[in-house]
Amino acid sequence: MAQAGRRPGQTETREKILDAARRRFAEQGYDGATVRAIAADAGVNAALLHHFFGTKQQLFAASMNLPVDPGELVPHILDGPEDEIGERLVRAFLSLWEAPDGRAPFLAMIRSATTNDQVATMMRQFLERAVLARLAEARGIPKVRVAGVAAQMIGFALLRYVIGLPPLVTASEDEVVAMLAPVARYYLTDGVHRPDTRRG
Amino acid sequence: MAQAGRRPGQTETREKILDAARRRFAEQGYDGATVRAIAADAGVNAALLHHFFGTKQQLFAASMNLPVDPGELVPHILDGPEDEIGERLVRAFLSLWEAPDGRAPFLAMIRSATTNDQVATMMRQFLERAVLARLAEARGIPKVRVAGVAAQMIGFALLRYVIGLPPLVTASEDEVVAMLAPVARYYLTDGVHRPDTRRG
Repeated sequence: MAQAGRRPGQTETREKILDAARRRFAEQGYDGATVRAIAADAGVNAALLHHFFGTKQQLFAASMNLPVDPGELVPHILDGPEDEIGERLVRAFLSLWEAPDGRAPFLAMIRSATTNDQVATMMRQFLERAVLARLAEARGIPKVRVAGVAAQMIGFALLRYVIGLPPLVTASEDEVVAMLAPVARYYLTDGVHRPDTRRG
Repeated sequence: MAQAGRRPGQTETREKILDAARRRFAEQGYDGATVRAIAADAGVNAALLHHFFGTKQQLFAASMNLPVDPGELVPHILDGPEDEIGERLVRAFLSLWEAPDGRAPFLAMIRSATTNDQVATMMRQFLERAVLARLAEARGIPKVRVAGVAAQMIGFALLRYVIGLPPLVTASEDEVVAMLAPVARYYLTDGVHRPDTRRG
């Protein structure tokens, strides 16, 4: 059952790189760990690492077994009609969690982050670089606004997938979107405006 | 340094009750554990337990070392001008977390809930009974709306106090209220209306 198109030594090399990445990210955080140091630990050059895994962000996602680099969702969130940006964000977030094999690694990261300071640091820095900074810059809004929507979405994931709060567990994807999209839109739209519940 | 107004045996009795409560809540969940069974475990009658700790909800808060029963905040959230309900909810939530000695037990509960199914069950049932059901009934809104604001607030606490995401860590209480109160108001106000970000 060897993977197609890979020479025998490649799988081993990839695993060595992923092991080195997990260690460096845990010990030095996402910011502190360099691709060069990870490559050196694994006994490969940085170009080969890049060939296998792409950017540092993509390497991080692979090392955490994430099905997709959350940062890759940013362009999809930004691209489309302005008044649907909230819905695109919520659907992108759900696509991570509802995907087959998607949930376990995210659950593992949340569980570790709440109990281990090293993982918390790593997760915080990754969230800042991969998501917060990029969304804030692209939208021209303060990072705290993106942090607000991150809080909404992570709290939702915690209650739906970890704690299992019934009304959130049983809500359909469309019901979740209907409820959370206006909140996401509020955060990502000019922070000066105050959302209200009057009809438009 | 004996506590004023307590006979020597009272402290011991209180501790026995709290120990019994922690065991029962962990083993049977918040719903399954009865005050009668906890009293029996501690070798006291239910009336004495009630005299020391009040309701089951208050006993739970005491057994988790919570500085205050979160359910006690519900009347404060409900009581006041309608258009300030979001601000009252956010300030009540912050008062729990920003109080001296307040943060540690909540952090402990979140950490345990993400890694231990028994604690997750206990926390879920407590959240449902003490907060969700009461707020939903008093406001005449579906429980899922209260779950939405709970997700926002718990996610905020996770990122501000556990993960330490910079823009949320450095935000002042007033900045937090300015950002989160409109979201809380959206959830607690008629769920049929769609919030928007246009000026009122």
